[in-house]
Amino acid sequence: MQIFITNDDGYRAPGLAALIEMVRPYGTITVVAPEEAQSGMSNAITIKVPVRIRKVSEEEGLRVYACSGTPADCVKLAMNSLFEQLPDLLVSGINHGSNSSVAVIYSGTLGAAAEGTLYGIPSIGFSLTDHSADADFSAAIVYGRKIIDQVLAHPFAPHTFLNVNFPALPGDKIKGIKLSRQNKGAWIKEYEKRTDPSGHDYYWLTGEFVNHEDQATDTDENALNAGYVSVVPHHLDMTEHRELERLRKEWLF
Amino acid sequence: MQIFITNDDGYRAPGLAALIEMVRPYGTITVVAPEEAQSGMSNAITIKVPVRIRKVSEEEGLRVYACSGTPADCVKLAMNSLFEQLPDLLVSGINHGSNSSVAVIYSGTLGAAAEGTLYGIPSIGFSLTDHSADADFSAAIVYGRKIIDQVLAHPFAPHTFLNVNFPALPGDKIKGIKLSRQNKGAWIKEYEKRTDPSGHDYYWLTGEFVNHEDQATDTDENALNAGYVSVVPHHLDMTEHRELERLRKEWLF
Repeated sequence: MQIFITNDDGYRAPGLAALIEMVRPYGTITVVAPEEAQSGMSNAITIKVPVRIRKVSEEEGLRVYACSGTPADCVKLAMNSLFEQLPDLLVSGINHGSNSSVAVIYSGTLGAAAEGTLYGIPSIGFSLTDHSADADFSAAIVYGRKIIDQVLAHPFAPHTFLNVNFPALPGDKIKGIKLSRQNKGAWIKEYEKRTDPSGHDYYWLTGEFVNHEDQATDTDENALNAGYVSVVPHHLDMTEHRELERLRKEWLF
Repeated sequence: MQIFITNDDGYRAPGLAALIEMVRPYGTITVVAPEEAQSGMSNAITIKVPVRIRKVSEEEGLRVYACSGTPADCVKLAMNSLFEQLPDLLVSGINHGSNSSVAVIYSGTLGAAAEGTLYGIPSIGFSLTDHSADADFSAAIVYGRKIIDQVLAHPFAPHTFLNVNFPALPGDKIKGIKLSRQNKGAWIKEYEKRTDPSGHDYYWLTGEFVNHEDQATDTDENALNAGYVSVVPHHLDMTEHRELERLRKEWLF
């Protein structure tokens, strides 16, 4: 199997090394990851400046490239310049930090998985709910393989990609895997205001997440809080079909 | 009515001036737009550096700020720093270039509208299918007001935002407004490879859009091609619910 790996934390991130370890038993790996960390870059693409790609290393079954662009750029450029035949599987991550609930719309990890879907490649984004540099990815590797085994036995639909989040727990504390839906929620108090030595204000992004769901519902956020690995199938059709039908009846032109 | 305006082409863009003209009869306007063009920035947020905001101008009923961040940052920072009571309406654009079909996932214009929805503000992204600097926004202003009138008379659901695209046609050639769903499609041949004077390769993003839909279907892309203004209600729940149900039955842990 030809496996493509990218991430949004950059090609030197420990989470990327963990993802390589996770999927190495399954096939031959090509990594194209950003030169630098690109957290919060969503599906952003580079338009106004050109992008570049360089080979970092190559060994048996594993070649690693760094790309100057965003995670989505990494996927696009790789598919257009490195492969004659598209890869069989795209995996993105393992992100240092959660991408559950509405965080999916900001995530470069998931942006790359969405991009893979547009190329018709089965794509999975993996994230660990631990931002620390020395986060322990060992349980994620074990549970990630369980999920890949299911994907190979029972593939998800071509227009779909998976958002997998691992709780920051040791393997023997993880309760299992839960197929979940995206949690509803939002952030409040999003900025911390400071003043620079010249007397000008500047703002750091911060914020508190507010969960809009009852904790008994079948969401990714609730699964993680209960000690499960969450798996959400996502798609790229953002149409709100029920509202479309309703407005078609109500609006008058 | 308190109206908030942003865009992804920057605070000096002609499309922003057109949007101010469109909504000025409806209320008092606050603009917070990026300092520079931010096309293709999707829902990207600025995490690693702080963001800044400065007042550009103020007159009766219109105050204009420029922000160092992305379109999503503009919305977040404005809602956290400028308003005691949130605005009644958020409009984003008018984008120079189409944001129909799957372009919605890359669009900073729509990223800002999505962000407004997270704050519970009725939000609309407007785009004109004309990239040129001297694009004619006069018909967009007329049709945009027709849409806002419908929104005020028959509001869309709070978890929804609208993606409006205007065809690049004079007003008397536009056939009307069509409530549509998001078109399926993708880009191919996405890069043009060049070599710099030092002999190193670099890549410009380009590409051809491939429409995966029959032209008879009720999509935004097809509405635009037929000379209509397209309006798609979008939401932020990217869960593919049917696939979730199917995988819950098939996967074995």
